[in-house]
Amino acid sequence: MRVLVAQLDPTIGDFPGNLKKILDALAVARQKKIDIVLFPELAICGYPPEDFVLHQKFVFACEEVLETIAKHTEGLMAAIGVVRRNLAQGEKKLLNSAAIFQNGKIVGFQDKTLLPTYDVFDERRYFEPGSEFHAWEWKGQKIGVLICEDIWQHAGFVGETEYVCDPVLEMERLNIDLLLNLSASPYSFEKPDVRVRVCQKAATTLKCPVILCAQVGGNDQLVFDGYSVYVDAEGNLRQLAKGFEEDLMVVDLEASACPCSLAYDPIADLYCALVLGTRDYFYKQNFKKAVLGLSGGIDSALTACIAVDALGKEHVYGVAMPSQFNTSSSLQDAKILAQNLGIRFDTISIDPLYDSYIKTLAPLLQGRPFDVTEENIQARIRGNLLMALSNKYGYLVLSTGNKSELALGFCTLYGDMAGGLGVIGDVTKTQIKLLCNYVNRQQEIIPRSTLEKPPSAELRPHQLDSDTLPDYAIIDTVLQAYVEECLSCEEIVKKHRLPREIVSDLIHRIHLAEYKRRQAPPSIRVSKKAFKVGRRFPIVQKWK
Amino acid sequence: MRVLVAQLDPTIGDFPGNLKKILDALAVARQKKIDIVLFPELAICGYPPEDFVLHQKFVFACEEVLETIAKHTEGLMAAIGVVRRNLAQGEKKLLNSAAIFQNGKIVGFQDKTLLPTYDVFDERRYFEPGSEFHAWEWKGQKIGVLICEDIWQHAGFVGETEYVCDPVLEMERLNIDLLLNLSASPYSFEKPDVRVRVCQKAATTLKCPVILCAQVGGNDQLVFDGYSVYVDAEGNLRQLAKGFEEDLMVVDLEASACPCSLAYDPIADLYCALVLGTRDYFYKQNFKKAVLGLSGGIDSALTACIAVDALGKEHVYGVAMPSQFNTSSSLQDAKILAQNLGIRFDTISIDPLYDSYIKTLAPLLQGRPFDVTEENIQARIRGNLLMALSNKYGYLVLSTGNKSELALGFCTLYGDMAGGLGVIGDVTKTQIKLLCNYVNRQQEIIPRSTLEKPPSAELRPHQLDSDTLPDYAIIDTVLQAYVEECLSCEEIVKKHRLPREIVSDLIHRIHLAEYKRRQAPPSIRVSKKAFKVGRRFPIVQKWK
Repeated sequence: MRVLVAQLDPTIGDFPGNLKKILDALAVARQKKIDIVLFPELAICGYPPEDFVLHQKFVFACEEVLETIAKHTEGLMAAIGVVRRNLAQGEKKLLNSAAIFQNGKIVGFQDKTLLPTYDVFDERRYFEPGSEFHAWEWKGQKIGVLICEDIWQHAGFVGETEYVCDPVLEMERLNIDLLLNLSASPYSFEKPDVRVRVCQKAATTLKCPVILCAQVGGNDQLVFDGYSVYVDAEGNLRQLAKGFEEDLMVVDLEASACPCSLAYDPIADLYCALVLGTRDYFYKQNFKKAVLGLSGGIDSALTACIAVDALGKEHVYGVAMPSQFNTSSSLQDAKILAQNLGIRFDTISIDPLYDSYIKTLAPLLQGRPFDVTEENIQARIRGNLLMALSNKYGYLVLSTGNKSELALGFCTLYGDMAGGLGVIGDVTKTQIKLLCNYVNRQQEIIPRSTLEKPPSAELRPHQLDSDTLPDYAIIDTVLQAYVEECLSCEEIVKKHRLPREIVSDLIHRIHLAEYKRRQAPPSIRVSKKAFKVGRRFPIVQKWK
Repeated sequence: MRVLVAQLDPTIGDFPGNLKKILDALAVARQKKIDIVLFPELAICGYPPEDFVLHQKFVFACEEVLETIAKHTEGLMAAIGVVRRNLAQGEKKLLNSAAIFQNGKIVGFQDKTLLPTYDVFDERRYFEPGSEFHAWEWKGQKIGVLICEDIWQHAGFVGETEYVCDPVLEMERLNIDLLLNLSASPYSFEKPDVRVRVCQKAATTLKCPVILCAQVGGNDQLVFDGYSVYVDAEGNLRQLAKGFEEDLMVVDLEASACPCSLAYDPIADLYCALVLGTRDYFYKQNFKKAVLGLSGGIDSALTACIAVDALGKEHVYGVAMPSQFNTSSSLQDAKILAQNLGIRFDTISIDPLYDSYIKTLAPLLQGRPFDVTEENIQARIRGNLLMALSNKYGYLVLSTGNKSELALGFCTLYGDMAGGLGVIGDVTKTQIKLLCNYVNRQQEIIPRSTLEKPPSAELRPHQLDSDTLPDYAIIDTVLQAYVEECLSCEEIVKKHRLPREIVSDLIHRIHLAEYKRRQAPPSIRVSKKAFKVGRRFPIVQKWK
């Protein structure tokens, strides 16, 4: 039995584009003498379609495509993810299904049973859970089909939920010879590892091979990493599709054993996720060119590198916008970085604009001392200049803030937070250093002095981040423990041996900055718990 | 039997503050010889607590308060909404419950069965549905308790869902003498009417009185209007609590009939909702003062009026920021409005700053013609000036954009979209005119010339909104039909007899502007389908 795993990158709602990818894969399948073609979850409309599925016409568009696909499955079995109407009784009028095709006909559907409704997932908002399980006979084999989450409960890797049903055990009752899984499982740091273990657990229980076909690509904040999986009946990992790109992987179930290992570098993967997330954010919206402010600091340097790898150096434009508060070495570092990357680079001094603001505001500010007001004015001038270049030439502005800053509100609304995409908004300062080292692994692209100088916003004389913030190592520890693990202040103090007042102050700041994040640009989600998507906290609250 | 309906305005996570309100109500109950005290849904932590409930400590805080409350219920029955742990099997480890107290003890819980998971509601994200129904004996009566949505299915007023269970019919089986409902039902235009009909339907089926206790107040984008309801066994509306403020309403079930009617003015209510939403957004965060740009136009005029009613005229600061493109009559209108309202008013010309931007950018803009770039620069200068005043003096900036503009992206990111709260961001241009007439009902506060002049952003010479947009009546019709009713382009063309290309272009623009709205400040939700909260669409998509 030969299975083609069509690891595709669909665009939400792009029915003609997604259909073309599907038909191309089916054509390859016929060429390569494939028996079964497996597609990702909701491959027809892309995942996640969100409230689009509340528009009837969108759902009809999904269903209509099935007829066209059917005609191209002559001689094949295929399983494709689709939204369809639930015509039976149930709270919700839609199902998240796998359409099963055999020999040019739709032979039935397997509906998703476990509907993740936590973190970035909202499936109970739309879908009724499936309750029936089937085995599909094909070429003398009994084939089970499950969708994404349906195999996760069995391995115990489910978030904030404990499903009562275990679809893997239902499959065991059906005595299947092969399990197919249609997935759209978003990347988060070190997650590919977990996905393999989930397949291994199902294979071990079912004593049959498991093949998982993953969606790949970026859709808004989510990046899907690909890495489709084939695990044999003994639970050995046998094949992995490519990470972070489309792939048509042929699995030959009769091929002799040749185990494979998931030898991957988590930091390299993190970098690839950011590149893919950026690229798809641009290309799927028909944007080509990015502009960003280069401060000479580490965050904008890394963002520029990612942009170049995502869009090509000819499409990235770096602008330094120095003021009287910037050191000349910062400007120098920005220039060198731009040279190393081979990108267009310009310098605009913001001093005349800054003076103009101070003069204009003088009657109203009444000689009050320099404070965060004047710092923010500088940041907002820079935001406005970048937006002007964006408006005039069609560049999309990249915001360069990191997760540690966003967490604490150590950033300026409409200033450094301005932009269409926050490339590293879900990357902690600790990870940023590791990523910069990764970028420089073969040659120095990001100048050493950028990496070595202490972090500073350079918005007042001799300013350092450490004037107002604890060490980033402490910030990132608390961030992980509080935001990702939901630990309490006491638990964090105990677990990480940190002073209570520091932890408590950081938690307080995280909640206080909610209002800023509500207006932040979308950032590419690469952690288990990103701001905005997947984390929902009120602005107005008094929890202590 | 005398019931005290404690229509309270809790703050999310403010356990001491909310407890004080609860204990005060119980004290009043003892004073007024009350038999039963009814509180809103999740009154202990405030609704909606969102992801706070994923923090164990938050849930423990909810549960702990119950013991304290119990001690204050001597001689009473009380029902209070609380988040509690689900110790039984189930997907989710939490329950949305009513704690039932009798005579100083917790006698049990009624769990919410129907968990809304659509629009602004995410209850399946957190809660396991209840499945058992009780009747509570008290002073010789059998009393049923249900939570909010539990009585809505019976009346057929549920959104995007069709529950299989009908808790009202379960109550019928228990043969109860009185039904209590704990609610947190957010306001939307003309909704108070629907809420009464829901209670009437339950009363008619059960042939017993129904008392609904509603949460009141603003929590982030949501406003809860209050208007707690008492309907008698024949389905007659007998009493309504106050709208848009806290109220302790005494219902005497033995009192002789004196039917009441819900005679309310939907536009007056809409205005009150905006005032309450603004007030609570400020006060619950300990903000007192607002600053906003006054353009002389209708949107900023209405926003200023709402701010004055919410915060007091001494706490509202209007700033006119004219440029060479503003007419002198606009500035005059802004001044007169400020005088009429009695608020502080200043004028800052933005021309020097505008010139400074044009000079600074000249080398990069290379003499390209005036376009949206230069328009946006003006808007962003104004945003920055307001933010500077906010930073220096602690004002919260009010954004003045309306829903029709936000829908089409006819607004400037970081410019007129800047601010902590979008007061009228969910109000259509059509409604804004009606609200202005309401404001002027007794005397002219908003100048007639503001109301009569054609809408213009005044960002280029002789600019009118109608240069680039269809008539607002058409925009608002399509907005309602597409965003609120999810109709397709064809259906809208047919229903409203509009040209296909206009409808199709407007729908296209609504989706294109998603990226702007993602960074908009929160606005007070007053429609059935607001942007941001309750409407989730991808930025990156190709749906046609």
